[in-house]
Amino acid sequence: MAEKLTTREADYSKWYNDLVINADLAEHSAVRGCMVIKPYGFAIWEKMRDALDKMFKDTGHQNAYFPLFVPRSFLEKEEGHAEGFAKECAVVTHYRLKVNPDESGKLMVDPESRLEEELIVRPTSEAIIWNTYKGWIQSYRDLPILINQWANVVRWEMRTRLFLRTTEFLWQEGHTAHSTSQEAIAETQKMLDVYADFAERWMAMPVIKGSKTESERFAGAIDTMCIEALMQDGKALQTGTSHFLGQNFAKAFDVKFTSKEGVLDYVWATSWGVSTRLMGALIMTHSDDQGLRLPPMLAPIHVVIVPIYKGEEQLQSITEKIQPMMAALRAKNITVKFDDDDTKRSGWKFAEYELKGVPVRMAIGPKDMENGTVEIARRDTGTKSTIAQSDVVAHIEQLLVDIQDNLFNQAMEHRKNHITLVDDYEEFKKLLDSKGGFFLAHWDGTKETEEKVKNETKATIRCIPFDLGKESGKCMITGKPSEQRVLFARAY
Amino acid sequence: MAEKLTTREADYSKWYNDLVINADLAEHSAVRGCMVIKPYGFAIWEKMRDALDKMFKDTGHQNAYFPLFVPRSFLEKEEGHAEGFAKECAVVTHYRLKVNPDESGKLMVDPESRLEEELIVRPTSEAIIWNTYKGWIQSYRDLPILINQWANVVRWEMRTRLFLRTTEFLWQEGHTAHSTSQEAIAETQKMLDVYADFAERWMAMPVIKGSKTESERFAGAIDTMCIEALMQDGKALQTGTSHFLGQNFAKAFDVKFTSKEGVLDYVWATSWGVSTRLMGALIMTHSDDQGLRLPPMLAPIHVVIVPIYKGEEQLQSITEKIQPMMAALRAKNITVKFDDDDTKRSGWKFAEYELKGVPVRMAIGPKDMENGTVEIARRDTGTKSTIAQSDVVAHIEQLLVDIQDNLFNQAMEHRKNHITLVDDYEEFKKLLDSKGGFFLAHWDGTKETEEKVKNETKATIRCIPFDLGKESGKCMITGKPSEQRVLFARAY
Repeated sequence: MAEKLTTREADYSKWYNDLVINADLAEHSAVRGCMVIKPYGFAIWEKMRDALDKMFKDTGHQNAYFPLFVPRSFLEKEEGHAEGFAKECAVVTHYRLKVNPDESGKLMVDPESRLEEELIVRPTSEAIIWNTYKGWIQSYRDLPILINQWANVVRWEMRTRLFLRTTEFLWQEGHTAHSTSQEAIAETQKMLDVYADFAERWMAMPVIKGSKTESERFAGAIDTMCIEALMQDGKALQTGTSHFLGQNFAKAFDVKFTSKEGVLDYVWATSWGVSTRLMGALIMTHSDDQGLRLPPMLAPIHVVIVPIYKGEEQLQSITEKIQPMMAALRAKNITVKFDDDDTKRSGWKFAEYELKGVPVRMAIGPKDMENGTVEIARRDTGTKSTIAQSDVVAHIEQLLVDIQDNLFNQAMEHRKNHITLVDDYEEFKKLLDSKGGFFLAHWDGTKETEEKVKNETKATIRCIPFDLGKESGKCMITGKPSEQRVLFARAY
Repeated sequence: MAEKLTTREADYSKWYNDLVINADLAEHSAVRGCMVIKPYGFAIWEKMRDALDKMFKDTGHQNAYFPLFVPRSFLEKEEGHAEGFAKECAVVTHYRLKVNPDESGKLMVDPESRLEEELIVRPTSEAIIWNTYKGWIQSYRDLPILINQWANVVRWEMRTRLFLRTTEFLWQEGHTAHSTSQEAIAETQKMLDVYADFAERWMAMPVIKGSKTESERFAGAIDTMCIEALMQDGKALQTGTSHFLGQNFAKAFDVKFTSKEGVLDYVWATSWGVSTRLMGALIMTHSDDQGLRLPPMLAPIHVVIVPIYKGEEQLQSITEKIQPMMAALRAKNITVKFDDDDTKRSGWKFAEYELKGVPVRMAIGPKDMENGTVEIARRDTGTKSTIAQSDVVAHIEQLLVDIQDNLFNQAMEHRKNHITLVDDYEEFKKLLDSKGGFFLAHWDGTKETEEKVKNETKATIRCIPFDLGKESGKCMITGKPSEQRVLFARAY
């Protein structure tokens, strides 16, 4: 373990970076903007992936795999899509290196291996997938196609931050094809609900569901739905998007089907994705100045057991006592680590597992052995309690549920305290700086006004929330009429 | 389902390709040399991946993720490695596209976005990983590092075949770091054993373990161990490799550690990998002219149930009868598909599931309903039998074990019949054409002789088998003395 973390208050951004590094989640690589996801970070990502994967399969989706490369001409086909991604594309232009004749031991690009058409490292896969679907779809009987892909993607970013914005990231992208607009819209909505459910039940992170405004939409989409979470510093983080693509990609790639009635029409599409960005959201929603606080449902280790002992004999008798408890915990799918490393002091271990966010710590020393007890500490509250050894399994089982709930409730409480109804632009600006968080305000529905707010305050419209009723009012910026409040925030 | 497959006898290579396409495993993509892995193929790959992943974790390894890109200068650092991969590298030279001013709606590479140093799309990750390990290793306490990565890699191939040789493929690559040579060699051996165990127990595919000759070694390795399987057409397929890298990469990337005794030394390394090539091996080991034959342990669907009925009422009563059987099978982790699609005839369905390699088919019609029976067909032998409904679950449970065993035994029998001891080069050449398979022959240990055989016969030394005793003899080509027979074959 490295030195103490920067506190959130001192420098939130540095705290985040310190935490990702010190908790061994990830680090910057030698390749500009790309990260190395370290084993502990990857173990959390694997838990997220497995949970999501099961949710996708339970809703009828299958996994497949499409090529890493997108020919340039494919990207061009959907105009909005091309515009949106052209500026951040890693481009493969050659397929061979050769020995550099001018410098011994060095390689150079072999100019004779230039590709006729450049290949783009996929920033997203709509283009390559819709080109493939063309071969799969002829009739309504071939629909719907409900496919998901787990993959790496590359978007050339100028400013990167571990997990939150990296040039290469890991994600899943669902790509579905439907025979009606209604069915595709229902799919878009369904997958947004899956994301929200995952965020709230697994990540213990409350989210607000809504639609993006036109200017924040995915390049090539008719409607982009999203979930927005609030971080501890009062900034919003978009944690998942689900796009209704209409017939845009079917038209671009000429994908038609014959309906039951024998009518030829373009296919309707959706796509939806979440990425390793969720790791950043998880960290920033729950963690504190001592380190991570992981929701039990995503923690690679649920319980760490630290023996307090002097000499081999004491360790031996503690180990014997602990074995059946560990077996009983493991039988309940609770992951247990017994840390009897004798090169580290127990104080060091306590701090280390706090940093790593292990939800429950159990310590057992000579006094506990005499009394038939153990000491249990909760990572979320820091509370310690002495528990009879015979009660350990039932106690921990319940505790893990409580910790999951408590983390959600704390995050929900924080969000409640940071959603502000505001009708005055000056007040909005003041509160943005002093309090931060989400703001529900009236907006006249124009790009110009949205842009003005962005330029003047760095706040953006995160979404037009679904669960907010219509309400007549006046745009806080222009005074023009508005039918619904929208959600503003500064965002990652 | 498309038309019938080409038979193996008529054209083995076309049979393979037809099968991969018709069974919906994969197809060629619009990107040269890259494939699309379709949902049914991907479901098999997922089963392989999950089984292997568990075996890696059970042997103490953790997953992590390293960047897709390798800077050119990193690839250069290990000379043999650089030579081995330079000619098949996809090279990223630019990071932006822009609107083509000469052609409306077209994009072009933005010449101003040229990278100072080119990035190679990883053909394998030793270089980027050892550059990372440098920051992780100072002392023997930091060792061993036992990491695996599941990833896509790109090797520019001129001639590609679905699963067997594609420009992009999916794989896992283990990269471990050790404080002693012995420990690294033991790791290399251990992971080869894991691969062999997986191939034989899960894929029902017997393999021969051995070391590669110097000229067939991985670029940068001291020793490459491999498993070699024999396909039905008598050609060998290398299905996994495990490399002892010595201190080559530690020296190239300057990775040193302080030993317990305070001595500074370079770290010892291994790497090991298997890829989607295993899919090709699985297909070619077991399948027949009717389609796939999948070992139950890797089959996405274990049992397909086809109701034979006329009218809604009959279907209804069959469905009611079947429900509790399906529940009982599922409770035993047996995957069941009930195919009551009324747009397809049952004959069509029988052929379709044969093509897809579903191990067990159960049919139930009006007569079965009267008699309290079902008809069970084994995909491996084609045998049908009538079974009492009350015995179905126990019968199928045992049948899946039997099918797994039978596929292994059949493959083993085929291999036994196709390993030939040969001492005469002319006979070897004759038998290569007439019989094919593996040949155990003496070799003088020189590159020149190995090369000569390759040029004259297209056969290569697949490995120097581990489980073959020493035996004095004379090289079948040069007559020079030899201490051990080696394994020759033509190979994929």
